[in-house]
Amino acid sequence: MQKRILVTNDDGIYSPGIKLLYDAVSPLGKAIVFAPETPKSASGLGITLHKPLRVMRVKYWGIDVYLTNGTPSDIVYLAINEAVPQLDLVVAGINVGDNTSVQVILSSGTVGAAAQASLLGIPAIAFSANVEDANDFNDPEYAREVTRITRAISEYVLEHGLPEGIQVLNVNYPRKITRRTEVKLARMATIKFLQRVNVSYDPRGNKYYWMYGTMAEPEPGTDVYVVHVEENIAITPISFHLLTADTLIEKHSGYFEDLVKSIKLGEISV
Amino acid sequence: MQKRILVTNDDGIYSPGIKLLYDAVSPLGKAIVFAPETPKSASGLGITLHKPLRVMRVKYWGIDVYLTNGTPSDIVYLAINEAVPQLDLVVAGINVGDNTSVQVILSSGTVGAAAQASLLGIPAIAFSANVEDANDFNDPEYAREVTRITRAISEYVLEHGLPEGIQVLNVNYPRKITRRTEVKLARMATIKFLQRVNVSYDPRGNKYYWMYGTMAEPEPGTDVYVVHVEENIAITPISFHLLTADTLIEKHSGYFEDLVKSIKLGEISV
Repeated sequence: MQKRILVTNDDGIYSPGIKLLYDAVSPLGKAIVFAPETPKSASGLGITLHKPLRVMRVKYWGIDVYLTNGTPSDIVYLAINEAVPQLDLVVAGINVGDNTSVQVILSSGTVGAAAQASLLGIPAIAFSANVEDANDFNDPEYAREVTRITRAISEYVLEHGLPEGIQVLNVNYPRKITRRTEVKLARMATIKFLQRVNVSYDPRGNKYYWMYGTMAEPEPGTDVYVVHVEENIAITPISFHLLTADTLIEKHSGYFEDLVKSIKLGEISV
Repeated sequence: MQKRILVTNDDGIYSPGIKLLYDAVSPLGKAIVFAPETPKSASGLGITLHKPLRVMRVKYWGIDVYLTNGTPSDIVYLAINEAVPQLDLVVAGINVGDNTSVQVILSSGTVGAAAQASLLGIPAIAFSANVEDANDFNDPEYAREVTRITRAISEYVLEHGLPEGIQVLNVNYPRKITRRTEVKLARMATIKFLQRVNVSYDPRGNKYYWMYGTMAEPEPGTDVYVVHVEENIAITPISFHLLTADTLIEKHSGYFEDLVKSIKLGEISV
C-alpha cells in the first residue's frame, strides 16, 4: 500500500521551502500538502482552542493543497480529521532559517508540527535551512541538492521508522551544499542568540523596547556550530521523553529527598 | 546580600495566582513582579521580535509592579534590562490549570518563562495548579497551603540552587491540598489531552472546525496521574540538554550510520 505523508510548514503555502519539501517526498508515496495560509512562525506547539478554524482546498502547483488559518500543530489534527486518517510520516519545512539550539527549537512552528505528530506516534522530521529569505530556495543547484537529501532522509525513515525512544529528527541545512558538505549527528546548543533589548522613543516621546538577537558563540559539536561554522548538515534526534531528567533524579537523590522534606507535608498551616 | 527573585506568569497581573506567588516568595528576598498586562497563555518560549514592547510601572497590591504587552519569555529579558540586572531565581505562575505532559509543557507560557530564564543560567521554577478558574485561588485554606509549599520549594532552590544538569523544576498542585497530600517526583506524561476536531457550520452555511481536548487515560507515575488521579503534588525536574537523544545515538549507531550513508554525500546530482 502507498505510504501517506503529510507535508506542512510554518512559513505558509507561499514559501518555496514547502514546494521543495513536496517535490522531495512526492515520489515516495501519497503526499498531502496542508499548510497555513499565512506565516505562523514561532507558534511552537500551540493549538488554537479559542476560535474556529477554516480549511480551504485549492489547486496550487497543479495539485490539491489544503490551507488553514490554524497553526502547524492544528494542521496535524485537521489533516487526520479532514484529509488522511492514517499517516506514515509527517515532514515539516523546509523552514526559512535554521531551527538550531534549544532556545529556537522550543518555539519553532516547524519543529512544533513534527513534535505534535510524534505525540500521536507518527514518525516526524523537521527540515530547516540557514537561508536569509525564501528566495534563496530558488537557486536551482541548492534546491536540487536540498531536495535530493531531503528525499533520502525521508525515504530512510519511511522504510525503517525511527529508532526506539526517538520521536523527531531535526534536520538543518547550511547555506551552501557542495561536494565537501558532510552530515553530522549534532547535539542541540543551548542558545543560538543572545537576546538584546533596544530602548527607543516613539514620536510622542514615549519609551519603547524592541527585542533582537545577536548570534552567540557556538560550541563545537552543537547544531549551531555544524550549520553556521562548519557549514555542514546537522541531524539532531530528539526525544521528548528525556525532558524529564529521570537519571538525574537518581543521581541527585539526596537533593530531592531534602527538598521534599523541606516542604513539611502533613503540617497544614492554620 | 538580599536575593533577587523575578515573579512572573502568563495569565496576566489580574490572576490571583501571581499574587499567591508573590506572597510566597516576598519574604525570601527582593521580589520583582513583572507580568503581562493581559493573559498570554500558550505562548511557549515565544519572543516578540516584530513589534515594539511597552513597560509600565504601576502600584498594585501596594507595591510597584511592572506590566508589559510582551510574552512571559520577553519579560525575562525586559526584567533584566529594565528592573534587575542580576537575578537569583525566576518563579513563574501560579498558573490557572496544571502544566503536565510533554504536550502541554512545550506550549506553556509559564514553563516557557522558566525555560527562558534557564537558558540564561538562572535557576527557575514553574508553578501551576489544577484549578478550574482563577477564583479557585481565593479559597483561603487552599491559598494558604499553596503559598506555604511554594515558599518552601523556592527557599530550598534559592539556598541550594538546582542540581547539575537540571534547569527547571516544574511543580503542579492538585485541586485540593490536605494532610494526606504527598509530594511525588513524577516524569512527564506524553500527552494529557486527546485532541479532537469538532465540525460545524456557521450561519452562512460554511464549514468550520473547532479544536478541543478530552483527557487521555494517564499512566501511573506520570505528572498527569499524580495530579489528576492521586491528587498529589508533582515535581518534575526538566533538563533541556537531554532533548538531544545522545545516549540513543550510540545505542542505535547502526541506524544512523545507514541513514547517513543513504544520503550519498559528495554525489552531487546534475
